[in-house]
Amino acid sequence: MNNPAYPTDAKQRATRILDGCGGHSIGAYSDSAGVRVIREDIANYIRQRDGHPSNPDDIFLSTGASDAIKSIMKLLLTGKTGKDRAGIMIPIPQYPLYTATIAEYNAHPIGYYLDEDNTWALNIDELKRALNEARYHCKPRAIVVINPGNPTGQVLSRENIQSVIKFAKEENLFLLADEVYQHNIYAKGSQFHSFKKVLMEMPAEYSNMELTSFLSTSKGYMGECGFRGGYCEAVNLDPDVKAMLLKSISAKLCSSVAGQAAMDVVANPPKPGEPSYELFEKEKSDVLGQLAQKAQLVTKTFNSIEGVSCNVVQGAMYAFPRISLPPKAIQAAQAKGQNPDAFYCFQLLENTGICVVPGSGFGQKPNTFHFRTTILPPVEKIQVMMELFKGFHQKFLQTYK
Amino acid sequence: MNNPAYPTDAKQRATRILDGCGGHSIGAYSDSAGVRVIREDIANYIRQRDGHPSNPDDIFLSTGASDAIKSIMKLLLTGKTGKDRAGIMIPIPQYPLYTATIAEYNAHPIGYYLDEDNTWALNIDELKRALNEARYHCKPRAIVVINPGNPTGQVLSRENIQSVIKFAKEENLFLLADEVYQHNIYAKGSQFHSFKKVLMEMPAEYSNMELTSFLSTSKGYMGECGFRGGYCEAVNLDPDVKAMLLKSISAKLCSSVAGQAAMDVVANPPKPGEPSYELFEKEKSDVLGQLAQKAQLVTKTFNSIEGVSCNVVQGAMYAFPRISLPPKAIQAAQAKGQNPDAFYCFQLLENTGICVVPGSGFGQKPNTFHFRTTILPPVEKIQVMMELFKGFHQKFLQTYK
Repeated sequence: MNNPAYPTDAKQRATRILDGCGGHSIGAYSDSAGVRVIREDIANYIRQRDGHPSNPDDIFLSTGASDAIKSIMKLLLTGKTGKDRAGIMIPIPQYPLYTATIAEYNAHPIGYYLDEDNTWALNIDELKRALNEARYHCKPRAIVVINPGNPTGQVLSRENIQSVIKFAKEENLFLLADEVYQHNIYAKGSQFHSFKKVLMEMPAEYSNMELTSFLSTSKGYMGECGFRGGYCEAVNLDPDVKAMLLKSISAKLCSSVAGQAAMDVVANPPKPGEPSYELFEKEKSDVLGQLAQKAQLVTKTFNSIEGVSCNVVQGAMYAFPRISLPPKAIQAAQAKGQNPDAFYCFQLLENTGICVVPGSGFGQKPNTFHFRTTILPPVEKIQVMMELFKGFHQKFLQTYK
Repeated sequence: MNNPAYPTDAKQRATRILDGCGGHSIGAYSDSAGVRVIREDIANYIRQRDGHPSNPDDIFLSTGASDAIKSIMKLLLTGKTGKDRAGIMIPIPQYPLYTATIAEYNAHPIGYYLDEDNTWALNIDELKRALNEARYHCKPRAIVVINPGNPTGQVLSRENIQSVIKFAKEENLFLLADEVYQHNIYAKGSQFHSFKKVLMEMPAEYSNMELTSFLSTSKGYMGECGFRGGYCEAVNLDPDVKAMLLKSISAKLCSSVAGQAAMDVVANPPKPGEPSYELFEKEKSDVLGQLAQKAQLVTKTFNSIEGVSCNVVQGAMYAFPRISLPPKAIQAAQAKGQNPDAFYCFQLLENTGICVVPGSGFGQKPNTFHFRTTILPPVEKIQVMMELFKGFHQKFLQTYK
């Protein structure tokens, strides 16, 4: 604490967190919901973000956001099987945590297709179609929305979120808002609207709905994945359900206190006038500025290539371009027993060393083909990669023309 | 790394771990099973402990041992219900993680009573009784053994472990050995025998049995609970099952890399001749020496009190004394709608400020009453506590005589 290498405000933050820990040490168990002072900082962060009250008692810290999402999904289980098991609506394409967790808990996934022609927005007619078809197979209980989208990179408009909230109200669905990319907004005109803020500013019948929202230290400008920091804010939760939630997470004792401390740093960053502020702001805007530049670069390049189209990467860390595959390529894939998009991705890997993930790993509309690529490598590498990709794709089209 | 305040061997260890991490940072995701070099250190630790080979590919790191235990229990699920659901044998008294996890996964707990008259050993006749009764309610699939015992503090003999392994073989039960207290051995003549070592030294029909064993950074001489470090060694696991295990843990991405690093420090402690060695050995033997002293003190004091009897605290961190409650006390508890042991513990708390946990929270034979106390407070505090307890207990007996 006397080391002059650390700025005084960083030391004050560390001391404040340690004072909130048992024995002034991150080596001690915390409350199962997390260190109190950290939950207060998170509530404060949410309050400032949304302009609405946030209660530290509605917040629990977790081992990455994945752990919190699993804890909430567990609450939705009925223990029933067959047609009576719980159905959970998830976007297609989706982040595979959701299908994996639904399978683990023997629930039923209700996939709704994101609207690719409308920048991967949620289409309410499609939500209704998916829900009505699923009623034959399960009891629908909840809807998951990922905003900004993973792997699709869209940022939902306020109006789109309002429509989803109304739909959830009408259909009596519990809301899970996966908002782990809330700091990753790049496109002009795009803005992050939290589900909480939108819901709180709707009439009382909506603003008292149950809602869970998730954040992580693994994304944003931080990318501190190894710390496994995360939290859930559970708004308007039925008190009996909340008691059961706390009981259920207490079997895990607590999440990593080092991860909790990392989450605090996100919730309570350096303020103007503090010694760390300038360096922090510089790092943050450098990281986010470069991501924005790369988001634009990949969108532009993909759309310049014949047979490739890509929605604007408005947010998150991924592009999910659509590729038109010639019939001969599809036949060649079938002959190898591969999905056509997987066949394409393997060819790309073998010919260029570029590794992307086939769209079939995330789900996509039948007879459409996509892949996911991240925008995380440095700008210069992305530039080289896009050139390599372009050359490969043109050769691929010629080969299977 | 140039800070002279840290011993060179500590810096070398830290550098070695960081070199094993993506981007040389504990802020990056690791492999789902954990950082390779840490798994190698753990395999080496097990090899030295047991004198038998250990394979880093059989080891996965986890968010505390609890998380690994849950991951393994999940594998035992059949997805079936009613009489066909999975049954898991657990000791009574038990650590509540087990009943909580069994309930979470809709499995059936098969409680076997530990033999209080035989220093809480496992009695094979009792295992058979419990198993045979449970066959009407479930399909028995696994047996959990906690050694050293929590909350009962026994250290199992080699012969007792051999008998349990034979029993598990005969009944085709999967073995879970909760060995998180393996460093906490106090009583003269008591020695920790890992299930792995005992199993490996039995004939081939036993030494090729599937076995899982768990360790944590939260116990031992470390007590670094907040880091949530832990691991599982899964020996002789069927390759298909192992692949499924790895797939299932990969949905959580990885455990806290800070926790993994803490686990490494346990597996690869300072060696003779290294700058940290003497201080490390002193700290370790001070902590374990004091625990041994307190284990002896509480055993002796409890047994000196009328109506209290306590098995020797051979290991772990707890005493689980038995108390004889007069009929009038039992009636007074019933009048308040409380379990008699809970009634006793509340009276103790209100009259002395001493907080212990009623035996009914861990399970106990019908019409017997116990409580659990830890031996963690400093010696002077334990001495005061035991005096206060003695006074309370005598007054309690007089009141309800």
